[in-house]
Amino acid sequence: MKPIKAIKPTNNVNDLIKQMGSTGFNARRLSKATDIVEKMFKDKECRNFLGLSGAMIPAGMTELVIEMIENEWIHGIVTTGANITHDLINAIGNKHYIGALDKDDAELRKKKIDRIYDIYMKDEVYESLEDFSQNVLKTLPKKKYSSAGLMKEFGKALSKKFPASHSWVRIAYENNVPIFCPSLPDCGFGMQIWLFKQFNELDVDLFLDWHEFVNELVWTAKRTGCLLIGGGVPKNFILQAQQFADTNHKYAVQLTTDSPQWGGLSGATLSEGISWGKISPDAMYQTVYGDATISLPLIISAVKERLKKK
Amino acid sequence: MKPIKAIKPTNNVNDLIKQMGSTGFNARRLSKATDIVEKMFKDKECRNFLGLSGAMIPAGMTELVIEMIENEWIHGIVTTGANITHDLINAIGNKHYIGALDKDDAELRKKKIDRIYDIYMKDEVYESLEDFSQNVLKTLPKKKYSSAGLMKEFGKALSKKFPASHSWVRIAYENNVPIFCPSLPDCGFGMQIWLFKQFNELDVDLFLDWHEFVNELVWTAKRTGCLLIGGGVPKNFILQAQQFADTNHKYAVQLTTDSPQWGGLSGATLSEGISWGKISPDAMYQTVYGDATISLPLIISAVKERLKKK
Amino acid sequence: MKPIKAIKPTNNVNDLIKQMGSTGFNARRLSKATDIVEKMFKDKECRNFLGLSGAMIPAGMTELVIEMIENEWIHGIVTTGANITHDLINAIGNKHYIGALDKDDAELRKKKIDRIYDIYMKDEVYESLEDFSQNVLKTLPKKKYSSAGLMKEFGKALSKKFPASHSWVRIAYENNVPIFCPSLPDCGFGMQIWLFKQFNELDVDLFLDWHEFVNELVWTAKRTGCLLIGGGVPKNFILQAQQFADTNHKYAVQLTTDSPQWGGLSGATLSEGISWGKISPDAMYQTVYGDATISLPLIISAVKERLKKK
Amino acid sequence: MKPIKAIKPTNNVNDLIKQMGSTGFNARRLSKATDIVEKMFKDKECRNFLGLSGAMIPAGMTELVIEMIENEWIHGIVTTGANITHDLINAIGNKHYIGALDKDDAELRKKKIDRIYDIYMKDEVYESLEDFSQNVLKTLPKKKYSSAGLMKEFGKALSKKFPASHSWVRIAYENNVPIFCPSLPDCGFGMQIWLFKQFNELDVDLFLDWHEFVNELVWTAKRTGCLLIGGGVPKNFILQAQQFADTNHKYAVQLTTDSPQWGGLSGATLSEGISWGKISPDAMYQTVYGDATISLPLIISAVKERLKKK
Repeated sequence: MKPIKAIKPTNNVNDLIKQMGSTGFNARRLSKATDIVEKMFKDKECRNFLGLSGAMIPAGMTELVIEMIENEWIHGIVTTGANITHDLINAIGNKHYIGALDKDDAELRKKKIDRIYDIYMKDEVYESLEDFSQNVLKTLPKKKYSSAGLMKEFGKALSKKFPASHSWVRIAYENNVPIFCPSLPDCGFGMQIWLFKQFNELDVDLFLDWHEFVNELVWTAKRTGCLLIGGGVPKNFILQAQQFADTNHKYAVQLTTDSPQWGGLSGATLSEGISWGKISPDAMYQTVYGDATISLPLIISAVKERLKKK
Repeated sequence: MKPIKAIKPTNNVNDLIKQMGSTGFNARRLSKATDIVEKMFKDKECRNFLGLSGAMIPAGMTELVIEMIENEWIHGIVTTGANITHDLINAIGNKHYIGALDKDDAELRKKKIDRIYDIYMKDEVYESLEDFSQNVLKTLPKKKYSSAGLMKEFGKALSKKFPASHSWVRIAYENNVPIFCPSLPDCGFGMQIWLFKQFNELDVDLFLDWHEFVNELVWTAKRTGCLLIGGGVPKNFILQAQQFADTNHKYAVQLTTDSPQWGGLSGATLSEGISWGKISPDAMYQTVYGDATISLPLIISAVKERLKKK
Repeated sequence: MKPIKAIKPTNNVNDLIKQMGSTGFNARRLSKATDIVEKMFKDKECRNFLGLSGAMIPAGMTELVIEMIENEWIHGIVTTGANITHDLINAIGNKHYIGALDKDDAELRKKKIDRIYDIYMKDEVYESLEDFSQNVLKTLPKKKYSSAGLMKEFGKALSKKFPASHSWVRIAYENNVPIFCPSLPDCGFGMQIWLFKQFNELDVDLFLDWHEFVNELVWTAKRTGCLLIGGGVPKNFILQAQQFADTNHKYAVQLTTDSPQWGGLSGATLSEGISWGKISPDAMYQTVYGDATISLPLIISAVKERLKKK
Repeated sequence: MKPIKAIKPTNNVNDLIKQMGSTGFNARRLSKATDIVEKMFKDKECRNFLGLSGAMIPAGMTELVIEMIENEWIHGIVTTGANITHDLINAIGNKHYIGALDKDDAELRKKKIDRIYDIYMKDEVYESLEDFSQNVLKTLPKKKYSSAGLMKEFGKALSKKFPASHSWVRIAYENNVPIFCPSLPDCGFGMQIWLFKQFNELDVDLFLDWHEFVNELVWTAKRTGCLLIGGGVPKNFILQAQQFADTNHKYAVQLTTDSPQWGGLSGATLSEGISWGKISPDAMYQTVYGDATISLPLIISAVKERLKKK
């Protein structure tokens, strides 16, 4: 089995992205979104949040998240649990693999291979995830943790034990970018926390995240912006945080495979957020419809190229 | 503005659904799904879970959830926070309204109208939600709550203060059906809990949900089944609970507007769950692609008709 | 192998459809669309066109088309070639079958089974299609045919040789409803015409369809309306016919699985057609997103119930 | 109003596309599709067909089609009528413009602006299209024309009157690449032919296209391949041509926004085509889900870069 390799930004796609601005449909959307992301990342008075949904880490998008962190383009990340779980799995030495779509899932089950669409993962990775997680949890100072607080501890542990790991959790920690996971129980890593808590004291208060996110990051910001990859809890959390704040998002970009006409939050237009006071009526915003595994590498590559040049 | 009215199951759609079983595409999927839901609801040794994602409550699906609860067809519900928030909003006397798609969202903002696709809600509902929530929270016995434990208290409060309310939260409580919300902070109601916790002690431990869901409901079941409306955290939680259990789902139906080819969990085939040990290799399962506001009323109506007759 | 059976309208779904009018999302769209179809079918001064795309005939939608013809609800049909080809295949005694999605297509090829998603057809049906088609073509009066003219001849032939066949082509002929197929060459039946023309004279002029459709049906109508199942050529043809006419569509309903954000005609909103003068600015129009194999049986059943009652 | 500018291939996206081959989801699909297109374009014994659906020409994809023609990568094009109509409109000096999505379509109608999603076109372009088309049609030698034969004449006319035009119809003619349009009546240009034929003799026999496509291009090929942009008639025609041929497609790539689960031809998997004998069981094939306005520029740019280097 050949391993998944995380994609890195490249030079020289900017010309293509620029050209797309004078075309139509989603090519133009992609180009406009790149312009907004560039402005948002350059705006030094703006606090930017990344929403991370969908199996982006198994699919090889890790280095792009790292790029955003290391360049200080984003100042807070809201993620599903899965994108943490699979990052930890990678960080401690396991891999995801190029899989196939035409295999029988019952056969994969017998071979102990977990499938994420066209990606494979050995089920045995949960053993090393358990070892690592339980060991870290054991050593944690006794205090009340938000998800962001807990993720900081795990980032610190990775930094110490796996300092060379290509882990966005580690690098977020090292760059002081908080990681919020409002649905933390709902993932393999969350189940490890539950396992630990069955026999040990550990106070994880996910409502504390609102305090750290809204009071400390949103309300103290002059402006905010967001780059939303997929929908779900990360999108909702980042937008909902603005509902009772004076500081609405001034920049908003979403990369989505969902559609507005189903009525759900994940596919909702950014304009809908204006009615709620989640996005500023004078915000620059753009949705790109399509798979973020294609649009994200293009946007990050082009923005990197632009910001290095200027 | 005309209010949204929750749809109730009707008689006599069963013949159409039966006929669909000999057609193709999603009509056949719908018919097969109805057969599985019928079998699952009739199987008295099977514990069934409802996954509730998407803005199903604003969109008028409340009575269908109530139908499933009152007929003892489902034994646990996993939901997004929004479907709780909007149920409470309805329960305490507010409404959702028939909205339009061609209005300017900045204008709606000025009029204090929040838009959920083609549904309107007055922003002022948050005031009564705050009153109600803070009052209930104030009176809660001091103990550690799972999301299910907390929802039980809110169901009880509704039962007392709004005994005639058409609220699935109230009726779930009255029928001893636990409500799990693994992403509880991430909704308007979750923000009320946060507000309360800024000035009061309240211990809500969302990891406790795993204990109550897995240990008490899944592991003690002879068989389990699931009806998944939409994806997101509810789908993942219900499936993930099985990953380390011996009791895999024997019945599984999902109603989704998402597609497998984007790779995310929400659109993933149920077959993919077999590779993870989340769904039994010998399970009966079926996905219906399309808006659950159409497929759910049809399935519940047909199943009701069938189960009353036999 | 079990055969596909065409679905017939049933009584008593109207209550559910009515209720959907006070819900949200596509349930409401479906209800509103049904209201428009009812009005359009009742309007005796309105000429109504059915656009028929997607493999509706293999999927068992034949009887619904027949229902519309026999009740004089539609006055012209524009179709893809496939929906003619598969109707002829059925009419002359062949069948489509309930198929599976998990079989190897190379194996199906060896067994001479053609797959249409979850529907099977024996490849040998093309032999009887050839016999029938060539025999009919041989006997045709020498003249210039539009696609509608040619389909009339085939309807007549079916009426004579297969008078009991459940064929919408036959029944359209018997009810004087013309069938337009602007892309007639592009189907199995179209290849039969090509085969015949290799050795015989036959003048089929597809530009003549514009004359018969626009001059004879559209320009002479007081009002026009359309029910568009899917997109493609049928949708475009029905809308394009209005572009240079004074009589724009006053009613328009489309049932589609496509989305506007991709920019193509098939997923385009009906509103877009207003800018072109294809749809009247004061038209009643509605799109229902989802599989027509579900929405069409519901609409036709409900409309039948309504129009019989009144 | 700012004009749409057709996007040109750029250098140096190949590295990103290559990297995508080790990721997941549609990024990997895009990378694999690029590999297949490269192999197909390099295979000098393979005859390659381009299927062109969706409003690709208004959306600025013209130069990419031209690139494929001029490099002798494709040997036949099957297109919707719209992609011809809008090419002629551009060729004779009109423009498409960057449009908006939030304007009232009834207002656009009053301003005589036709909207194609986010692209505008002045309705007056039909006047110059009429002048040009009628003038060309007037001079045509009297004979029987296939759509390909007719398009050749229009390519020749453009070559003479608008030799510098960026028109894929002109350049296809100059490079002897035939253009097939099996649904030719169904477009603005097709209506011009109809207009002409009301007062003049002109014999356009669209069944002749099968002869020119199947007998002359497919049956005489050692191998065939196809690049399908969108579905509809072009996809069906290119695949159907293989159904009764010994030479099945050995390479097949489709770029689509449609999904298999709706059952229609446009979203059908390429694998389904194997059951029909339209695609060879040992073919290399790949579908990329997403907007072709993004995937096509990437594929053509990367392939150009690769083929120039080797």
